[in-house]
Order: sequence, then structure tokens, then C-alpha cells
Amino acid sequence: MNALPPKIEQDFVALRKASRMLRQLDTGAKNALLLALAERIDREHQAILDANGIDLENLDASTTPAFRDRLVLNEKRIGAMVESLRQVAALPDPVGEVVESRTLANGLKLRRVRSPLGVILLIFESRPNVILEAFSLAFKSGNAIALRGGSESRTTAEVIYRLMRETLKERGLDENLFYGINDYDRAIVGALLKRNDLIDVVVPRGGERLIQFVQANAHMPIIKNDRGLCHAYVDDEADLETAMQVVKNAKTQRPGVCNALETLLVHEKVAPAFLPRLYEACSSVGLEWRCDRESLAILDGRPGIKAATSEDFDTEHLDLVLNCRVVKCLEDAIEHIEHHGSKHSETILTRNEKKARLFQSEVDAAAVYWNASSRFTDGFEFGLGGELGISTQKLHVRGPVGLRELTSTRWIIDGEGQVRS
Amino acid sequence: MNALPPKIEQDFVALRKASRMLRQLDTGAKNALLLALAERIDREHQAILDANGIDLENLDASTTPAFRDRLVLNEKRIGAMVESLRQVAALPDPVGEVVESRTLANGLKLRRVRSPLGVILLIFESRPNVILEAFSLAFKSGNAIALRGGSESRTTAEVIYRLMRETLKERGLDENLFYGINDYDRAIVGALLKRNDLIDVVVPRGGERLIQFVQANAHMPIIKNDRGLCHAYVDDEADLETAMQVVKNAKTQRPGVCNALETLLVHEKVAPAFLPRLYEACSSVGLEWRCDRESLAILDGRPGIKAATSEDFDTEHLDLVLNCRVVKCLEDAIEHIEHHGSKHSETILTRNEKKARLFQSEVDAAAVYWNASSRFTDGFEFGLGGELGISTQKLHVRGPVGLRELTSTRWIIDGEGQVRS
Repeated sequence: MNALPPKIEQDFVALRKASRMLRQLDTGAKNALLLALAERIDREHQAILDANGIDLENLDASTTPAFRDRLVLNEKRIGAMVESLRQVAALPDPVGEVVESRTLANGLKLRRVRSPLGVILLIFESRPNVILEAFSLAFKSGNAIALRGGSESRTTAEVIYRLMRETLKERGLDENLFYGINDYDRAIVGALLKRNDLIDVVVPRGGERLIQFVQANAHMPIIKNDRGLCHAYVDDEADLETAMQVVKNAKTQRPGVCNALETLLVHEKVAPAFLPRLYEACSSVGLEWRCDRESLAILDGRPGIKAATSEDFDTEHLDLVLNCRVVKCLEDAIEHIEHHGSKHSETILTRNEKKARLFQSEVDAAAVYWNASSRFTDGFEFGLGGELGISTQKLHVRGPVGLRELTSTRWIIDGEGQVRS
Repeated sequence: MNALPPKIEQDFVALRKASRMLRQLDTGAKNALLLALAERIDREHQAILDANGIDLENLDASTTPAFRDRLVLNEKRIGAMVESLRQVAALPDPVGEVVESRTLANGLKLRRVRSPLGVILLIFESRPNVILEAFSLAFKSGNAIALRGGSESRTTAEVIYRLMRETLKERGLDENLFYGINDYDRAIVGALLKRNDLIDVVVPRGGERLIQFVQANAHMPIIKNDRGLCHAYVDDEADLETAMQVVKNAKTQRPGVCNALETLLVHEKVAPAFLPRLYEACSSVGLEWRCDRESLAILDGRPGIKAATSEDFDTEHLDLVLNCRVVKCLEDAIEHIEHHGSKHSETILTRNEKKARLFQSEVDAAAVYWNASSRFTDGFEFGLGGELGISTQKLHVRGPVGLRELTSTRWIIDGEGQVRS
């Protein structure tokens, strides 16, 4: 389990070598590559769709519709991939940006300069459109990336990797600037996670089990894309119409994503008025409720209303299921989020600015909203031009992982012979 | 080995709870605590010295002088601790700093705000003056810190912890804002490294074995203070007098620290002129040389000149020992550093700016110097007001870890009912 197959070892050595060249590559050359790649993907989209058809045919009959949907590509999804490549080309290059500069009393000139991380390993599951989004962000931020996808999408991935290699070659660049791992033996992931000599950062993008495995086994830093167990707190000073629109949007507009709402917390004073109103507003989409004792007392008897189990408040349903709890005050809401939240996106609905600021300061999440839907936590929406994921960790970066977030800073120091006394 | 003793578990829960309060504490209250602590340490320095005397008496006779020196406190060292507390009080508070702000087309107002990391575990060895430096930086940046020192300094540490608790109490603050772990059972470290529910970040500060153990076992992110295997490259276009002063300073001014020079790389054109000159300049301090074949041919026969073994170029001597290698060109020097460096501090000596910029861009280290001694890589020197260590990792922060480097950013979003369509 611990040794890497020699072929993979060699490929990583080549990737690492190419990453040194990539650090130097100027912005124009990087953008030209991304635009050429967009054009080629667009032109050869039928080859991708054909390959995707083979992967879909090979799927187990037992596969869930949600899993199948993540694997499917169509003209619209390929169009979005092409558009995303063009958007990343249009964004500013973070590499070389001077973040801070100062001159010391002895004349030493210090600059803190944005620099690539080096070699990134992305482990993802099934969704083949992740490949180009991840490659384009890594490439533009000066990082060489190794991609390890799920075996279900292997045929689709192979075609995309081929188009990437062809474009790099056509632009006179090293084909080893990325590495699409096409060996799907599970033991390889475990072996890779020990190789901090080859890999600078690992990004697991998938289910909880994958993330826990990586966390327990990686010898290199992780950029974690964990689950989103997001809350909305409706305060007794909330505008109930606004609260209703926001909560409905956060829960039902696209329930399967990480920035969707999972748990509603309502102040006891407004719960009797608010909950039946929200229930009515969501009745058409077939929302299922998991209620605590107090909210159950208000909504009981209606279709779709159930008592919550002790696990519900710790479950990311990713479905049309809403946990609901009545709280006595703002502090209780914050306390609940502290214990059950996943540090992703949290929302307060209130007209009282002081309460909003307290919530935004005390709640320790990547994004904390006042009177808006948590569905906005997203690299495109925040203007970062896509994302390698949404980080819920506390070190390095929190929230959407865009270009800048794939860099760190180095100190560049110019002297005239200064020595320390 | 895996379960934490209940007392330690309880103390961490209290620390975690206190960390929430600390996030809110205003700058004035934080500075007042640090100044009061400086005063108390100053006033009660004799109690610290007495305790330190007991620890020194209890030392094994087999202890090395270097180890003993790290443990020793005296009036001068305590004075430096007091001064450092005052300096941290005088630095700007990073918490709440707005790093970036933007308003989206839909009116959503985004701010990216500096926020504490939460609970930090510092594992350090012997040096008791680390306690106050680490606490002051963590506290001012809004982080609760758990300190786990070596058992050799237990008596000294206990007195310092008591003075810290007394000062917190006097200022009306929670005594649980830090946690001095006084159980020295080794199994505890292994158990703590699994508890990412209690600890947000671990900082190992000590020898290579400690760092490797933490890296292989931690389930939470690490801020790594690794070894410094630093190089200086003397180019064929270097000013040899400047090069001689800088190399001598970097190697001999304080050889036992991580930003001291370990390996000298010299261009073959200047090696015959430069090496004998440097040898002469360093002869008074008793420098021992470990030479490759080419440099040996130049210096052979002189006292202190030895042939390098294959391990020397990968060894952080931390002593008056200099590895020396003659290279054919700048690229060979960069290649050598790529393979043997520890990504800490690297220096080029040349009058040619183009070569300097190439070196600074290609060499992937936390600090890259042109014509200056690597001995400047240090939180105080860089104006960060002390440091929790020098990070040689590539994620989050590279180089000295000061106040800002102990924070991350969160997104704070103000809306007026915006929903996603």
C-alpha cells in the first residue's frame, strides 16, 4: 500500500520539474493557453460527449440519479466549461503581486510577493467538469496540478486530458504541466498522501469519507472542501417577508449544494407567525420538515412535518429536507451554530444592526450573512472567477478558493551587503 | 495512547469556550493585559530565576551545554521577555482589519475581515522564554493558546503560568484564555494531535523528530517551524569583498540558529580567488569546512579543511561547520538549492541584477536575499514584532509568523433580502 508504482513516481517527478518552469511563465502565455484550450474544447465537444456516453453506459444499474447527474455532460455543461476557461483567462494574474513592502533602517528592501504553492493534488469524485475548472485555476496561479478522478468518469477524463495535452504542445508548453492520473487503484491515493516530497498541497473534493481519509493520512497541508451544514437564524426583529424569501431561496433553490440551507433557527417570539407562513410558501416544492418539540407544536398535523431525531441537526441532507428549531434568543442561536455548524455559511435575518454585527463577529464561519441567502457563497458570485472548492478550514483560506487563494507569499529582500551585528 | 485524560479534555473545552470571548475582546483590553503582564514579570523576576535554578539543578549530568543554555534564564533574558511583551502591545491589532471589500451588482456588500484562528496548540522544547512570546502573539491576535513544553523546564514554566493567570484575573479576564499543560506524559501529545474538534492549529517548535511526528500524526493544520538549511551562492559577477563579509556573517555570527548559513556555493570562475580569502577571514573563529572535490583542490592542506560526505549537503550543522561546493553556473546553484534546501532563507551575491531577479524568482524559499546576510529572517527584524517561529511550509504563511500570520480571513456579507435566482 505504501510504495508508489514507478510509473506514477516518474510522472510526479516530471510534474514537479515542470512546476518550476510554470512559476516563471508570463501572464500572456498563460492566458493564450487558456483561450486556446477553450477553443479546442468547444471545437471537439462531440468527442467529449461520445466518451461521456460510454461512461454513462458503463454505469451500474444501481447508481443513484444524483450520482448519474453529476457524471453527465451535455452541450450546455461543456459550454459552461468553455466559458469558465475564458473567464479565468480574463482575471488578473496573482503571481508576482507585491502584497507589502518596507525598507528597514539598515537599508534592506523587503517585498512580500505572491508566489505559487507548487504541486497540487486534487482528488475528486465523478464530476468531469471539475477537471478544466481546477486546471485553469491552478495553471493561472502558477501551480502544476495532478488530477485523480473517480473511475466512473475515466473515458470522459481521458478525452479531456488528451485535449489539454494537445493544446499545451501546440502552444509550445511542457505537457507535464498537469498530470491526469489514469490508474484508478485505490491504494495509490494512500501512497500519494505520504509523499510531501512530491506534493505541496492536497485538495480533497468529494464526500465526507474521502475528506476524513485525507485528513487522517495526509503528510502535506490540505485545502479542505468540507460539507456545508448551513443555518439561518430568524430573529424576533426580522422582517418576516424578507426572512421568508431568503429562507425559501436558501433551502429550495438548489438543495443539493454545499451553500444550501440545512437548519432553520427561529426566535420563539416570531415562530408562531413565521413558521406556518414559510410552510405555505414552500408547500409547492414538497419540502420535508424535521422539527424540534416547539416547532412541531406549531406545525404538527400538516403533510411533510416530522419530529427531528438527534442526528438531524448534524446531518447535511443536501435534499428538500429542513431541520427546524425554536430558540429563546440570539445567543442560543449562536451556541447552536457553534456546536452543529460546519464553518461554511451562516445567516442572520434581523432589522437590528447591533444584533447582526454581534452574530457576524461571534459566528466563526467562512461567510456570515446579514439578510441575504447563503446561496451566494461561490467563487463566481464573489468575483473570484471560479473556485477549486469552498474551504471550511481556518488556516490559509476560508470560503471560495480562487486564484489568489492558490498562492502564498515569499519575502524578496534586496541588500547592499548588509550583515547582522 | 488515544484517549485524552479527562482533566486535560475538560481544560481544552474551557480553553475553547474562552477563545470565543477572546475573539470579541477589544484592542485596549488586550494591550492593557500585555502591559500588566510585562510589569508583573519584571516585578517577580526573582521568583522565575529561583524556579529556573531548580530546573537547572535537576538537569542530567549528561546534558549538552547547548541544551543547558536554552533552558537558562537570567536577568537579561527576562528583560528581553518583558520588552517583547511591551512591543507586542504596541503593534497594530490585526483582528477586524478589512482586507478587501466589494459590492456586487445585486447590492450585496462583501468584506473580507481578518479573524483569529481559534485554539492553537504550541509544542516546544526546553526554552522557557518561548512561553511569553507565544502567548503574547496568540493573545493579541485573538487566539487561545495551549502550551506544551519540555519537562526539563517544568518548574520555571509553572511560575510563569501562575503569573499569567494572576494577571488575567487581576484584569478581570478568563484564566482559561491560555492553558499551560503540566502533565508531561508523552502519550498526551499523540492523543491531542487527533483532536481537531478541540484544536484548530498545531505549531511544533523543536527538533526534526518532533516536527516529523507532528506531521505524520496531526489531524489538524500545522504551522511548521522546520529546519533552516540555508545557502549562499557567490556568482562570478559578485563583489568579492561584499560576498566575503556577507558569507562570514551568515555563517559565523550565530551558527546555532535556523537562519544561519550551512552551505556555500561558489561559481568556478571566482572560487580560486574567493575561497582562500574567505578561509582567511574565518580562520580566527575556528570554522570547519566540508568541501566538494573542486573546493578541496583549492583549499586542501589547510587546518579545518575536510572532504564533504554525501550527507553533509543535507545536514543542518547548526555549528561552525560550512559545506562548500563549486558550481558551473547560476542554474546549477538553483538546482542544488532545489534539491537540498529547506525553503527557509537563500542568498545570491552578484552585481548583476538580472541574475539576482532570476534567482529570487526561481528559488522557492520563504526569504530570498540579494547581497545581504540570511541572518535577517526574523520577526523582529522584519518588523512583525516577534514571531511564533519561521514557517518553511508553502501554505498559509512563509517566513516569520507574527500577529497577522496568526489570523485568517472570513467573509462578512450585508444584504437587503437578496436571493439567488
